[in-house]
Amino acid sequence: MRVLGLDPGLRVTGWGVIEAWDNRLRHVADGVVRSDESLSLAERLAQLHQGILAVIAAYAPESAAVEETFVNCNPASTLKLGQARGVVLLAPALAGIAVAEYQPSVVKKAVVGTGGAAKAQVGMMIRTLLPGAVLEAADAADALAVAVCHAHAHAGQRSLRRAGGGA
Amino acid sequence: MRVLGLDPGLRVTGWGVIEAWDNRLRHVADGVVRSDESLSLAERLAQLHQGILAVIAAYAPESAAVEETFVNCNPASTLKLGQARGVVLLAPALAGIAVAEYQPSVVKKAVVGTGGAAKAQVGMMIRTLLPGAVLEAADAADALAVAVCHAHAHAGQRSLRRAGGGA
Repeated sequence: MRVLGLDPGLRVTGWGVIEAWDNRLRHVADGVVRSDESLSLAERLAQLHQGILAVIAAYAPESAAVEETFVNCNPASTLKLGQARGVVLLAPALAGIAVAEYQPSVVKKAVVGTGGAAKAQVGMMIRTLLPGAVLEAADAADALAVAVCHAHAHAGQRSLRRAGGGA
Repeated sequence: MRVLGLDPGLRVTGWGVIEAWDNRLRHVADGVVRSDESLSLAERLAQLHQGILAVIAAYAPESAAVEETFVNCNPASTLKLGQARGVVLLAPALAGIAVAEYQPSVVKKAVVGTGGAAKAQVGMMIRTLLPGAVLEAADAADALAVAVCHAHAHAGQRSLRRAGGGA
């Protein structure tokens, strides 16, 4: 299974693609899409959207995953993040790829083993789990982390189905 | 000039198209795009985006306008609105149409004559200014209102250019 992980942001959106089979993981690619702050909001959203469409065209993921957003007390930044998140999630949806959402604590637990792990620990574990990861920015590590989380959740479901005897 | 006004929302997004020339206005079409609450967030965003793309294809506006969002103290609803707003603003941007943003008070002043007008007054003035408006929902009236505001702003700029003697 090829999974696209996404970490949306208006200035920088991280993405990462992994391959997962039989509880094994392989790094395929990761990177970030940046929007040009001198452009209008609508033009910046178009840059992000087209960047993620290009990633989908290049790496043909079969599923996608994103962290559930931790909404903070700054409404202006929540609105900005929401707008970026909307156009980023739209890209796989238009390509017919389902987008799973995971809580940040679930992502950390899948990658580091504890839901309260620090951000730096996530990055270190991603380097260990996925040799070859580029990680130009922390956003790319976070995107790979949610992809790993999705692969684990999927593998878990498959094991359960096997244990259940063909349910 | 043909103007598309937009009033984004995750459940219902209002849209309205008008034609403006020599300080005169004509209603072309208005309506709403709804998203199916039983679908995933990404699928709902795709419905909104594709609905607005279809409006743009059908009515070929030359410019678009949206109200600046009044961000409130509920971060969850601000995030939802942001996601809807992102995919709605993306549609004209992908079609190469600039999207202007206006403060709510500026829109009310353009339509009713005072920045503190009530929502119902905006709807009534839209019916008067634009005979033929369907206004299936209040969101469509708000979308037409921001289109009228944009047409006025544009006409004002044109008059200023004329008065300035070809600047």
